[in-house]
Amino acid sequence: MATWNNLDTLASYAKLKELKNRVNVKEVMAGENGAERVARYTTPMAEGLSFNYAAKEVDDTIIAALAELAEEHQLVEKYEELLNGAVINTGEKRLVLHQLARKQQLNDVIHNGVNKREFYVSQQEKAAAFANKVHAGEITNAAGETFTTVVQIGIGGSDLGPRALYIALENWAKRNNTLKMDAKFISNVDPDDASAILNSIDVSRSLFIVVSKSGTTLETLTNEAFVKDALKKAGLDPKNHMVAVTSETSPLAQGDDYLEAVFMDDFIGGRFSSSSAVGGVVLSLAFGPEVFARILNGAAAEDTLALNKDITKNPDMLDALIGVYERNVQGYPCTAVLPYSQALSRFPAHLQQCDMESNGKQVNKFGERVNYVTGPIIFGEPGTNGQHSFYQLLHQGTDIVPLQFIGYKESQIGNDVVIEGSTSQKKLCANVVAQIIAFACGKDDEDPNKTFDGGRPSSIIIGNDLNPESLGALLAHFENKIMFQGFVWNVNSFDQEGVQLGKLLAKRVLAHETDGALKALSDLFEI
Amino acid sequence: MATWNNLDTLASYAKLKELKNRVNVKEVMAGENGAERVARYTTPMAEGLSFNYAAKEVDDTIIAALAELAEEHQLVEKYEELLNGAVINTGEKRLVLHQLARKQQLNDVIHNGVNKREFYVSQQEKAAAFANKVHAGEITNAAGETFTTVVQIGIGGSDLGPRALYIALENWAKRNNTLKMDAKFISNVDPDDASAILNSIDVSRSLFIVVSKSGTTLETLTNEAFVKDALKKAGLDPKNHMVAVTSETSPLAQGDDYLEAVFMDDFIGGRFSSSSAVGGVVLSLAFGPEVFARILNGAAAEDTLALNKDITKNPDMLDALIGVYERNVQGYPCTAVLPYSQALSRFPAHLQQCDMESNGKQVNKFGERVNYVTGPIIFGEPGTNGQHSFYQLLHQGTDIVPLQFIGYKESQIGNDVVIEGSTSQKKLCANVVAQIIAFACGKDDEDPNKTFDGGRPSSIIIGNDLNPESLGALLAHFENKIMFQGFVWNVNSFDQEGVQLGKLLAKRVLAHETDGALKALSDLFEI
Repeated sequence: MATWNNLDTLASYAKLKELKNRVNVKEVMAGENGAERVARYTTPMAEGLSFNYAAKEVDDTIIAALAELAEEHQLVEKYEELLNGAVINTGEKRLVLHQLARKQQLNDVIHNGVNKREFYVSQQEKAAAFANKVHAGEITNAAGETFTTVVQIGIGGSDLGPRALYIALENWAKRNNTLKMDAKFISNVDPDDASAILNSIDVSRSLFIVVSKSGTTLETLTNEAFVKDALKKAGLDPKNHMVAVTSETSPLAQGDDYLEAVFMDDFIGGRFSSSSAVGGVVLSLAFGPEVFARILNGAAAEDTLALNKDITKNPDMLDALIGVYERNVQGYPCTAVLPYSQALSRFPAHLQQCDMESNGKQVNKFGERVNYVTGPIIFGEPGTNGQHSFYQLLHQGTDIVPLQFIGYKESQIGNDVVIEGSTSQKKLCANVVAQIIAFACGKDDEDPNKTFDGGRPSSIIIGNDLNPESLGALLAHFENKIMFQGFVWNVNSFDQEGVQLGKLLAKRVLAHETDGALKALSDLFEI
Repeated sequence: MATWNNLDTLASYAKLKELKNRVNVKEVMAGENGAERVARYTTPMAEGLSFNYAAKEVDDTIIAALAELAEEHQLVEKYEELLNGAVINTGEKRLVLHQLARKQQLNDVIHNGVNKREFYVSQQEKAAAFANKVHAGEITNAAGETFTTVVQIGIGGSDLGPRALYIALENWAKRNNTLKMDAKFISNVDPDDASAILNSIDVSRSLFIVVSKSGTTLETLTNEAFVKDALKKAGLDPKNHMVAVTSETSPLAQGDDYLEAVFMDDFIGGRFSSSSAVGGVVLSLAFGPEVFARILNGAAAEDTLALNKDITKNPDMLDALIGVYERNVQGYPCTAVLPYSQALSRFPAHLQQCDMESNGKQVNKFGERVNYVTGPIIFGEPGTNGQHSFYQLLHQGTDIVPLQFIGYKESQIGNDVVIEGSTSQKKLCANVVAQIIAFACGKDDEDPNKTFDGGRPSSIIIGNDLNPESLGALLAHFENKIMFQGFVWNVNSFDQEGVQLGKLLAKRVLAHETDGALKALSDLFEI
């Protein structure tokens, strides 16, 4: 059994703190030494990706210290315990099994007599069978017409991950003739969200997936009612158009209001649920079950790499520990995620949830306050767009923001044009490469306004192209990074008590059970 | 003439710093005192909006200190000088006239014999006349068919602002029968961006606006070529489909490649250019010139408020100074912008550029390093979506992030549904109100994991509904806030030298003129 200690009790952490400001990125990335670092500080990921950390503030000494921390803190052992079904989500007394939904890595996980891997596979098969019937025209609307659009109704983890993955592969699927249905997403309780989506589709040929584990999520139930209302107004019977993704014990699982109910359980948290039925049903309908399976395969391959105890061969743990060094030793409060791929336009928003909701905690897994900072603020937009936006601050602002680039050699759609001797894709790649060096090395200038200090650390994940497998590996990389960081900070990355208070107060406002400032603010909105 | 001093030379700033941690938001927002603050700490904005700062870490003493800073630092005088045509953009030796494009506030601005207000009005009229002809079917494609879609090709300031405004009013325009054309945007040099947009439209019935002030922006020229290529492949003559928005001296303004060329100038920077032809042409085509004029009117009304020397009657300056207190005295590095309106889904991305590119600087306007922190990191997503995502960290993370909420009493589209006794819109409003109190007051609990410390400051902009005028006022509020903060930090908010180095290095990569780490990274991408 691994021992769960606070970060600041570790001898290896005390040692790591003494390595503050050890590496000057501007110096080490200059000249041929920089080229050597690019060749040396790289780790293969799954599915042809690689993690290059040459431009991070690390060297062999720091990597050795991080390895020591990983060992003393038993990070891989903790991951193994998680895979083997330990109650890692201590607050809610739950197992954590999103990796299991991809593939069994170690032993079977049996809970209350149920083989959980078999349970997840059975739900994948149910989703696949349903999707195949829809695609084959065996399940149609009442008029016998095929469904052309699938709309996911969910919020948070039931929205951001599946939406990011859909956008990431939509154009790939078009090119590979595997886009079976358009997917849309309704999430916000703002009625304009559902209205706008409903106005943009043919509801008579749309399937709606209601996604809520508990079956009680306010936004999702409200939007379900919104959609049913629209279906009825169009003279359609809602139950011919609705699918549920929920837990077996939820209200949504009862009755016959749905064409199909696919199940999830308490052991895969919302923000990690893209690999469960939450992502599986919508992505199987949109792209076909085979494509969803390929995403899972890519994720499983990355999960396997994350078992490696050698930090230099474990890109997920290495990325996590470099982030801890940046956060706790160097003191940087934010991290920017910058994919040079338009298809990943909503991937940073997904990571923002996955990371900030997992590790934005101030108590350890035993409910005691910790005396160090935990999860950073995550934000990002695709390059090259960001270069013409917030990069100004990243280059010349007064604070340092560590950067995480992502880039691919090839485009997804394959259309391109040669201008001034290079394709757009080459220009895209040239830009991400140039930014790494601009941030690291900077530029001296007589005019301080044109001076770039450099010394701004970054890493990059490089791939050949964004496809189902490499997308799965990318997703798993960040999920595993977040998991390892949670282990390092000794927090429970798998609950989210911080979202409860707002829900409670909102109910009070709607029930007019308020006083003081809450009543005064409610009055301003005439609630 | 105002005097331009560094913030840390001011007596009022020294005084302000002594007020660190003076107000405990949890305490002051409790009970009836909280209700009194909600009533007291509010300032009217233009177009029916109001700025409520009850839940910020301020009291009368701090407001008085901020007023003193505003006076000593001559913030309104500096704004007046800007409006009167002073060379505020010192680095590039340029005037700053985005407010003038809205309406003349003070005296005429004559530059090189040109009345600049007349110039901007003439371009608005040109854009309006062109749009009216397109809508009337007087300008058509070669087959005589009307244009149904307008595509903006631009990046950074030529993309984010116009895109955010289009999304903000798209549904409003549909409801008010004033959506004349669908608008799309191509920005990224990633060829998949242009390909995906071109695949989603009927190019034969599309107008393309090429937006680049210099006429040399790599991404935009590349995407223009991409689009022309697609038009030719469809058997169409590009010049029947292209419009230019550029400066009078740019390469794009020459020749007869465009149906029309509408002009901008050097005195409106990209991130402030939504009010210029950059926003004007696309929004006039999409919504009609009258709607664009209404946006400008709303902005002009807010600009006028910003002239008030009484800080409690100047919401833009007040918001700016509270932000400075949070950044420089309280030491918070980030600010989150959280609109409870799905229509404002891309407004945070626009503000991220506008703010971080303007004030992410480390030298003052005389090119000297400053010894204090400047512009914060800005990020945000719409509520209630964010509540199910990164709010966990905002509530229970180890760092404090000041928050800027935006909310409206009414929805835009007006469709709604009553569930459990309330409409979705009421639920939306109840949630934003609840969040303000949850962040401010927190909640004690025996279980530290369920404890909310509170003390997390926020403000809210409240409006009746999001329409062209209130959108214009909202836009101007943030532009003016950013301008005032730039004055406080004594930086030049109107240049962006930090974007140059990356461009330069990318050119070298494409020309294969690299060595060291830059060459090694280029080789990884096989450039």
